[in-house]
Amino acid sequence: MLGGCRCDLEEWTKNVRPGTLLRTNDTIRRLADLPDVPQRESLTDCLDRLRRDLDDFRSRHQLSQVVVVNVASTEPPFDDSTMRMTWSELEAAIRSGKAELPASSVYALAALQVGMPYVNFTPSTGAGMPALQEYARQRNVPICGKDGKTGETLMKSVLAPMFAHRNLRVLSWVGHNIFGNRDGIVLNDPTNKASKVQSKDQLLGQILGYKPQTLVTIEYIESLDDWKTAWDHIHFRGFLNTKMVLQFIWQGCDSLLAAPLVIDLARLCLLAQRRGEGGVLKHLSAFFKSPMEVDENDFFRQFAWLEEYAASLRR
Amino acid sequence: MLGGCRCDLEEWTKNVRPGTLLRTNDTIRRLADLPDVPQRESLTDCLDRLRRDLDDFRSRHQLSQVVVVNVASTEPPFDDSTMRMTWSELEAAIRSGKAELPASSVYALAALQVGMPYVNFTPSTGAGMPALQEYARQRNVPICGKDGKTGETLMKSVLAPMFAHRNLRVLSWVGHNIFGNRDGIVLNDPTNKASKVQSKDQLLGQILGYKPQTLVTIEYIESLDDWKTAWDHIHFRGFLNTKMVLQFIWQGCDSLLAAPLVIDLARLCLLAQRRGEGGVLKHLSAFFKSPMEVDENDFFRQFAWLEEYAASLRR
Amino acid sequence: MLGGCRCDLEEWTKNVRPGTLLRTNDTIRRLADLPDVPQRESLTDCLDRLRRDLDDFRSRHQLSQVVVVNVASTEPPFDDSTMRMTWSELEAAIRSGKAELPASSVYALAALQVGMPYVNFTPSTGAGMPALQEYARQRNVPICGKDGKTGETLMKSVLAPMFAHRNLRVLSWVGHNIFGNRDGIVLNDPTNKASKVQSKDQLLGQILGYKPQTLVTIEYIESLDDWKTAWDHIHFRGFLNTKMVLQFIWQGCDSLLAAPLVIDLARLCLLAQRRGEGGVLKHLSAFFKSPMEVDENDFFRQFAWLEEYAASLRR
Amino acid sequence: MLGGCRCDLEEWTKNVRPGTLLRTNDTIRRLADLPDVPQRESLTDCLDRLRRDLDDFRSRHQLSQVVVVNVASTEPPFDDSTMRMTWSELEAAIRSGKAELPASSVYALAALQVGMPYVNFTPSTGAGMPALQEYARQRNVPICGKDGKTGETLMKSVLAPMFAHRNLRVLSWVGHNIFGNRDGIVLNDPTNKASKVQSKDQLLGQILGYKPQTLVTIEYIESLDDWKTAWDHIHFRGFLNTKMVLQFIWQGCDSLLAAPLVIDLARLCLLAQRRGEGGVLKHLSAFFKSPMEVDENDFFRQFAWLEEYAASLRR
Repeated sequence: MLGGCRCDLEEWTKNVRPGTLLRTNDTIRRLADLPDVPQRESLTDCLDRLRRDLDDFRSRHQLSQVVVVNVASTEPPFDDSTMRMTWSELEAAIRSGKAELPASSVYALAALQVGMPYVNFTPSTGAGMPALQEYARQRNVPICGKDGKTGETLMKSVLAPMFAHRNLRVLSWVGHNIFGNRDGIVLNDPTNKASKVQSKDQLLGQILGYKPQTLVTIEYIESLDDWKTAWDHIHFRGFLNTKMVLQFIWQGCDSLLAAPLVIDLARLCLLAQRRGEGGVLKHLSAFFKSPMEVDENDFFRQFAWLEEYAASLRR
Repeated sequence: MLGGCRCDLEEWTKNVRPGTLLRTNDTIRRLADLPDVPQRESLTDCLDRLRRDLDDFRSRHQLSQVVVVNVASTEPPFDDSTMRMTWSELEAAIRSGKAELPASSVYALAALQVGMPYVNFTPSTGAGMPALQEYARQRNVPICGKDGKTGETLMKSVLAPMFAHRNLRVLSWVGHNIFGNRDGIVLNDPTNKASKVQSKDQLLGQILGYKPQTLVTIEYIESLDDWKTAWDHIHFRGFLNTKMVLQFIWQGCDSLLAAPLVIDLARLCLLAQRRGEGGVLKHLSAFFKSPMEVDENDFFRQFAWLEEYAASLRR
Repeated sequence: MLGGCRCDLEEWTKNVRPGTLLRTNDTIRRLADLPDVPQRESLTDCLDRLRRDLDDFRSRHQLSQVVVVNVASTEPPFDDSTMRMTWSELEAAIRSGKAELPASSVYALAALQVGMPYVNFTPSTGAGMPALQEYARQRNVPICGKDGKTGETLMKSVLAPMFAHRNLRVLSWVGHNIFGNRDGIVLNDPTNKASKVQSKDQLLGQILGYKPQTLVTIEYIESLDDWKTAWDHIHFRGFLNTKMVLQFIWQGCDSLLAAPLVIDLARLCLLAQRRGEGGVLKHLSAFFKSPMEVDENDFFRQFAWLEEYAASLRR
Repeated sequence: MLGGCRCDLEEWTKNVRPGTLLRTNDTIRRLADLPDVPQRESLTDCLDRLRRDLDDFRSRHQLSQVVVVNVASTEPPFDDSTMRMTWSELEAAIRSGKAELPASSVYALAALQVGMPYVNFTPSTGAGMPALQEYARQRNVPICGKDGKTGETLMKSVLAPMFAHRNLRVLSWVGHNIFGNRDGIVLNDPTNKASKVQSKDQLLGQILGYKPQTLVTIEYIESLDDWKTAWDHIHFRGFLNTKMVLQFIWQGCDSLLAAPLVIDLARLCLLAQRRGEGGVLKHLSAFFKSPMEVDENDFFRQFAWLEEYAASLRR
């Protein structure tokens, strides 16, 4: 089935460039053990290199616009003091060789420096720190993220408002996810998994207005390949305190749920850039598990923003 | 557990009055085989009797307002020529003894005649014919319905918009419902079941904009008592035509899901009446499987109307 | 994916011969509307023709043994007086042109007449009438059936003994089956479906020793193709009359569950014939939903018979 | 509902005696923080005290037989050198004050010393070490265990043989268990949970003859109380390597599934003792997740042993 696009794929592999291992952990390091990946490189050298790669790509293909999308494996949570810096503090720290950034943020910064929109489709940090958001606004480059809302969390952001609107109190929400693709191997490392579980879990409290007991697991089951299967058990209380149960089972092909969202995000970022919009694109919140600078996780409220944006274009 | 409210219940049974068997079928007739129910009664006599009962209730309890709620068992579909009459045609037909109305519509008309709001919580006809809607507007009495959206259909009106917004094409939607309460016995009669299945099925096409293959069953399983269990299997197509599956299992206590909605509907109707509103209350669409005079079945759009209404009250 | 065996398949289509429409219904007639199928043919002519086809096949391929397997679509139930005839009565009726046999039994009889074992993998009648069983014993030709136990019914015959052994009383057992292959179109005709539902339903009473409320549906959902999906809801009562629930969802590829059973049955029938065994092969009961001449539906007791048979071969 | 048996319960609480905290962990220690529980007591003193309690109970109620059943919360795994001792080595170690035993084994030993059968309904060690099994045989006292097979694991021991007999290769078997009773709090401590998960997991390899990838979780979800809910996802491979899925959801009341098994085990142990049987009662394997001295985990083969035993009684 892949035969039909082999030529195109081979042509495109020419664009593949070595990445960076800055601040990644052993699991990712093992999976990315390629000869061309620099093992010891300063942050400024790395930024220079990535900017050069991006610029080369743009000019080689004679493109007027390029968008950078992070679909790399999930990194461990990053809670360095860097997360609390302003842009000028971060800039100074980088210049003085004292700053540390996770790989996803290095790419984000490189993209912003060359004026390319940056989409963070993963729960990694990316442009999700105040300094980089400030810089994106300052440079007027669109950014959005984080963590594409493809399956189980999409369901959460759809069902939780129903429980809220019907005044059915959620007592507990348990979500067990199993899948067998490359992302699964990375998430099997507890430090990486922590970022993902947090991203899948936190929206319920915001939507419901209280914190039910929650449990989220995500485990690598090799035989499932790309078929992400989620079982969610939602225990809720109705009239006269009667306990009731909703369960759902989601069997989706992970990459094929993500792909069309990535394409739409890329187009919407490029459109925004052409319209002179920069900084966090809040109207794209419906695409993400943890939308930046936004406290609304109700999918339909988020989607209404996108519809309003689309309507405003027509005017 | 019922012991605590026995006295109240006994006091209230004094308000119970014989109903009517007009145009009901054998299953309902068998279940309602009570000595006091008139076996042969003309429509005008029946209307007189029901109006008298309603008036007596209002005056005996010294109430300024009363709301009539239909929570009786589902009737067979009604597609008489009456459904196409104007109010003046229907009025003339009743006067001349030629009109036929299903029991639910007789109650609706009696309620409207004495100025009481009428809520149709079932898929029966009730006030859901043009002539009665016209009469409600003319008399300025609030009406709403039909068929309370408590479980499986609520889920449909929540999930179908998600598939639409994500451009995931629904190929087939199968819903199997089992339950064991009195309503189940009535629905086991195919003529009654037809009304229910239609009410549970039709909203998908409206929300999605196309008609996927659908199947809805609703069967009486005695051991389940009031625990309505629904299994829905949704087959959908994602990127590159890949087929995926969402299944959900809903285990809810049917009466306890309905009760708070009935209370809210009664209060909202009484409020509307005090505010001088009459005719179909479209802002209550979110409560119903087949909202009257409304083509919108997306639960969140319907709920937004209720929120707007609530906001307008505060102004 | 089928490309690799195209040549073999084309070679084998040369063996395809027109069947018979005797006593089939309109749904099957429509699907089998081929130019070569005789529209009006007497039973004796049809038997002659089928025997000739079978003999030709055997001699053309120079085979010492041939087994006939019925994997045709399900026929309507057959409850003619023929079902109560002895072999000599049936033989006389055929000779005098008064007998009627369903298509599956015509094939069964033709096979037995030329000494070929007959496997009935469907719920149709096949060799499942006293007269043909008697004839199979008399001719010492192996027969077995009926209705291959591939999915949901296999689960029933595995789980019901568990409930029995643990003294957990089954209150109700609901099984909803959906699938989209050719068999599904045939079963969508209620007269054909009746045979199937009966075959899927009756074993519970035998295993449990009492009759819980049961419900079996089987519906054609086109998008599922060959993926048979079954949802079973088992309501049972434990200690102190507490009600509990087991649900299972079976997602199997119907043909690929059937195929290896068909191959094993063919080999086991040929083996039995070489060992001089004839009549109903009871040791093959584990393969069937409604094993002939056997009252045992507990899968593990049935399988133990197969193991005993296998052990006896080694001695 | 408990009102009806309050008097009996109060009468029986007089039989409650302080237990022991020997080698338990903090979670159990916190839950068992009662004034009467000795905080520092030697193993020999503890054994003396427990024997005295058991003897007192027997004489006060004038019983000819008493059976000791361990239904206490799960202990951490115990893999001390004690597990490899003979009875004479263990006896010597206890006498010299050097032996360490987990609480469950202290009770087991005390029971055996006063000639009472010991049932281990938990995954804790109990009489499950060679030295105590030897001592039980020597004293001719019946013992059995371990870990009552009530729900998800019962299902595993029923379904795995089906996959084996049908030659459907299990690729992965994922089992997620959630529940909210006291046992759940104890199992939330990872050291206790380890015993349970091992007990729920190991039988698959024995039944299937190979090790599929497995995952077992068991988590405390408070709102579920005693309703143990298990979701199992079984991925298997059929003909031509086609992957298929069976999922089941078990919703059982844990204590009410356990109670009748405990009663049956008590009676069967007392019967065995009256018949002069001692040591491990292998015919009770069908009751346990990890039957002692037995390698067979197929539920139906285990149950056949019980049937044979019952049949032998009648002879």
